[in-house]
Amino acid sequence: MAETAIPSDPSPAAPDPAGASAETYVVGVDYGTLSGRAVVVRVRDGAELASATFEYPHAVVDRTLPGTGERLPADWALQVPSDYVDVLKNAVPEALRASGVDPAAVVGIGTDFTACTMVPTTADGTPLNELDRFADRPHAFVKLWRHHAAQGQADRINELAASRGESWLPRYGGLISSEWEFAKGLQLLEEDPEVYAATEHWVEAADWIVWQLSGRYVRNACTAGYKGIYQDGEYPSREFLAALNPDFADFAETKVVHEIGALGDVAGTLRAEAAGWTGLPEGIAVAVGNVDAHVTAPAAKATQPGQMVAIMGTSTCHVMNGDKLAEVPGMCGVVDGGIVDGLYGYEAGQSGVGDIFAWYVKNQVPQSSVDAAAAAGKSVHQHLTDLAYEQPVGAHGLVALDWHSGNRSVLVDHELSGVIVGQTLSTTPEEGYRALLEATAFGTRRIVQAFEESGVPVTEFIAAGGLLKNAHLMQTYSDVLRLPISTITSEQGPALGSAIHAAVAAGAYPDIRSAAEAMGSVDRATYVPDEAAADAYDALYAEYLLLHDWFGRGGNDVMHRLRAMRREATRASSGPSANAESARGTDALEQDATASATSDAGVTA
Amino acid sequence: MAETAIPSDPSPAAPDPAGASAETYVVGVDYGTLSGRAVVVRVRDGAELASATFEYPHAVVDRTLPGTGERLPADWALQVPSDYVDVLKNAVPEALRASGVDPAAVVGIGTDFTACTMVPTTADGTPLNELDRFADRPHAFVKLWRHHAAQGQADRINELAASRGESWLPRYGGLISSEWEFAKGLQLLEEDPEVYAATEHWVEAADWIVWQLSGRYVRNACTAGYKGIYQDGEYPSREFLAALNPDFADFAETKVVHEIGALGDVAGTLRAEAAGWTGLPEGIAVAVGNVDAHVTAPAAKATQPGQMVAIMGTSTCHVMNGDKLAEVPGMCGVVDGGIVDGLYGYEAGQSGVGDIFAWYVKNQVPQSSVDAAAAAGKSVHQHLTDLAYEQPVGAHGLVALDWHSGNRSVLVDHELSGVIVGQTLSTTPEEGYRALLEATAFGTRRIVQAFEESGVPVTEFIAAGGLLKNAHLMQTYSDVLRLPISTITSEQGPALGSAIHAAVAAGAYPDIRSAAEAMGSVDRATYVPDEAAADAYDALYAEYLLLHDWFGRGGNDVMHRLRAMRREATRASSGPSANAESARGTDALEQDATASATSDAGVTA
Repeated sequence: MAETAIPSDPSPAAPDPAGASAETYVVGVDYGTLSGRAVVVRVRDGAELASATFEYPHAVVDRTLPGTGERLPADWALQVPSDYVDVLKNAVPEALRASGVDPAAVVGIGTDFTACTMVPTTADGTPLNELDRFADRPHAFVKLWRHHAAQGQADRINELAASRGESWLPRYGGLISSEWEFAKGLQLLEEDPEVYAATEHWVEAADWIVWQLSGRYVRNACTAGYKGIYQDGEYPSREFLAALNPDFADFAETKVVHEIGALGDVAGTLRAEAAGWTGLPEGIAVAVGNVDAHVTAPAAKATQPGQMVAIMGTSTCHVMNGDKLAEVPGMCGVVDGGIVDGLYGYEAGQSGVGDIFAWYVKNQVPQSSVDAAAAAGKSVHQHLTDLAYEQPVGAHGLVALDWHSGNRSVLVDHELSGVIVGQTLSTTPEEGYRALLEATAFGTRRIVQAFEESGVPVTEFIAAGGLLKNAHLMQTYSDVLRLPISTITSEQGPALGSAIHAAVAAGAYPDIRSAAEAMGSVDRATYVPDEAAADAYDALYAEYLLLHDWFGRGGNDVMHRLRAMRREATRASSGPSANAESARGTDALEQDATASATSDAGVTA
Repeated sequence: MAETAIPSDPSPAAPDPAGASAETYVVGVDYGTLSGRAVVVRVRDGAELASATFEYPHAVVDRTLPGTGERLPADWALQVPSDYVDVLKNAVPEALRASGVDPAAVVGIGTDFTACTMVPTTADGTPLNELDRFADRPHAFVKLWRHHAAQGQADRINELAASRGESWLPRYGGLISSEWEFAKGLQLLEEDPEVYAATEHWVEAADWIVWQLSGRYVRNACTAGYKGIYQDGEYPSREFLAALNPDFADFAETKVVHEIGALGDVAGTLRAEAAGWTGLPEGIAVAVGNVDAHVTAPAAKATQPGQMVAIMGTSTCHVMNGDKLAEVPGMCGVVDGGIVDGLYGYEAGQSGVGDIFAWYVKNQVPQSSVDAAAAAGKSVHQHLTDLAYEQPVGAHGLVALDWHSGNRSVLVDHELSGVIVGQTLSTTPEEGYRALLEATAFGTRRIVQAFEESGVPVTEFIAAGGLLKNAHLMQTYSDVLRLPISTITSEQGPALGSAIHAAVAAGAYPDIRSAAEAMGSVDRATYVPDEAAADAYDALYAEYLLLHDWFGRGGNDVMHRLRAMRREATRASSGPSANAESARGTDALEQDATASATSDAGVTA
């Protein structure tokens, strides 16, 4: 399953004037939704020597349980933890071999993971699905970030927290996600009390993989804060949890509480078995775990307050450090040390970005455009973009809302949906496409605006992720935001970010900031605003805002009603053809859920 | 240019027990935007024996003037009157020959035309473009219904009429169209006073063709009322016209006023030269002219109050008789004897129907759907329809506004545009298609509602036109309207309607009503409402109405602003690529205009 390893530009075989024997290296491993990618990085300057990816054998378990074939309910998404270990066994040695680096020169390993992805384990970290007695129990498997079957539990958490005025609620923009630790844990309790009882640790996969590498369980500050409701040194209270369900009262203290590790700290050293898996030397530093989006910030040298990093792919995740604590309405969360130790880490996001463009190209673009793209030797995305941008701003007469996958920030409402206004009989496929590109830029501006209105100004916007390659899109973001757009240099930002954390854990740099300076890399102000275009976009953004508030803040709750109607229609249908329909409807809702996730921020377009 | 003539089912060669010599026939000629169609019809029962079409050699003159090659401005649309005569010379003899009918057995000819299509003529009916001195003057040509360059004049007419409280204004739902006689006439005066001065009659093409056939100029009551602001025996006053432009003061009395002919009356008899063109006997009855949509009502036996006929094609025109005069907000017009003499004829319409579906299929449907349609041996339209209707109502989670070509009724606003709400990453091409089908049904319901609220109840809905062939669409209309849908039997309703008028003019029937009973034909209640579906559609219609009123009545004028932005952006752009853009923009606006017309109601899908 290992894909071909890719040697990168700076060849280690080239003579090194400083003496090759002095060079040290680190390995970063980025765990995505479907695969893990390992990259070998030079400590001195962050040069990426080679990388390799390994696809999880079980991918996402969202239809039938491995082994038993049991059909899973809608909205479930599981994974198999041994797949994560397989990445260590395959991608790491592959990348190492392709790099030509002497394993003895590797001084540390760092990892980042999707989140919130939860592993129920025994006291020694054994995943419960690996116990014979639980091998046939869905709840014993890993609940992937995009497992959305705990919405009922999340709703109850939110309702109760709001009614009790829990102080942590505003830290999450007012809403806890069904994807997070407590909602998923409550679902586990209520649907499979036996597996719940056997769960001695409720572990983020980000920490579980570090546990496998180092033999030590350390809870990273990032997921503890963003996903585990760990604020000001505390989890939600026993009283709060008991009010949700009496049997849940001790959930935090018995299954969640654990030693917290700051980002960049060393969690432990590589144990012998893991050294065997990876081909790396036993005893090298293993960094505290981290999350894919957050780890990208240092890879883009964005460790100062006001530097917003947007990881733009299928969805977009925005992370930014701040030197003070503020409550930003509709943000995903603010966590002390959540991105860089010593600063408040803010997170926001857009549920669908590249996913929306991909949906459009798959579903709403005719063959004539596909043929024209082929004739021009371009991707359909690029062809539509180039055509659409032959026109000046506003010439398409369209404005769209980018909510096809819901709104993660600032409305925090996954029942919202897409809108396009202004279509005429002369509207072309490329015009519709551009309206969607612009809508995502407007969505970002709305988020930046929320930060600024809350006293957390955004001074630089740094783009990372697969959408970087669309220059017109980047220019649009610059014009719409009226900000220079800097761009990350690395094509594998998360893996490089993990390598940076490994270097700090190995003691090669005193802290993430100095490591980022040496190893990270960014092109400053790759795009700068065009005044005339920015003026024109202001007018379109004003229209976006009117629609945003009307459809999103109760002016017209049509989207919620349509969503309810859709569920009702799908549920109510019966008979053979209706059953087929119903199955289809389930898939459809599942697919929505996929894209509305808060992690896997999309390093691919 | 004549297409192959098509003999129809009932063969005249078959022995007629009643005696073939006793059979009589009439010819109906339907003048569309691009061609004329002649049909030979048996007087006794309306059987269509054969038809033939002839495409206008000059089609629509909207780019360069014939002869000179002069480039026409945007929004212009002219025609060449000799093309209309060519239809008489080609399609009529072709149809006659194909029918096998002895020309001596033909007792009358009737015609219907697009409207408002205006011919400037001398006193004897010679079109001014046929005079050498005006052959190079655009204003000397026919202004086709979809000539939209008189919008400035229309705006002034509406503003002045509203401020003066002109009593005729409410008869047109509050707005006079730029397509109609007075706006076009005022444009002629102000842009080419010399041609204006030479215009001795400002003649509807519907009447001009009758003039050619019979040698008599008779103004038909239908266009005089709907397009000529002829109400209660009067045109707009001299004072009103003088206030628009002093030189326009005598426009009505010198160029418009003329003998009015009731529908179904004989305008005159076929003159020798026209007999030569057509191969029909000199001296047979020539019926008073009529309009394509309105003439379809008797072809569908819809001559009673409350029977609404919808001619559903590229756009939809709704015509209905009423026994009293009411002011229906947003209707196109109400005219005494406008459809059938002795009743008030009401007209309303939807600017885009089949046009919207065609736009969607051309611009928003991927190759995968096209391939699947081909594999299933269906048209793309049928394939999308069939797929979409496998789901119950509301399962797509979408609601759309059918304003891609503006709104003709009840908002009367061609600056409005299309909207779709509710798209998710799982929305399929066929779901979007169905949402548009439904939107047009909701648009019709809104019109029916306006009639009912104004005391003109709709008791039966009779569908005609090319969209009839989509059974799911028809069922949707029945469910949405909660009315049985009857369907016209003839595939060439307008031409049959003209033939019915010819039969009345020839004295074969005492009036249109009795002729329609004998010759028209309709399948009653082909579709009846499904209660459960109707209930579900009620919920979607409620959403449609909310969007309709917010976007259409000033809640959010975004569509007007987007349209203005579009014009501005296209105008402002300069440089070579921008010029290309500008040319494209012009075409785009033209294309919009095409579809927003009030005539050519679309007998084709």
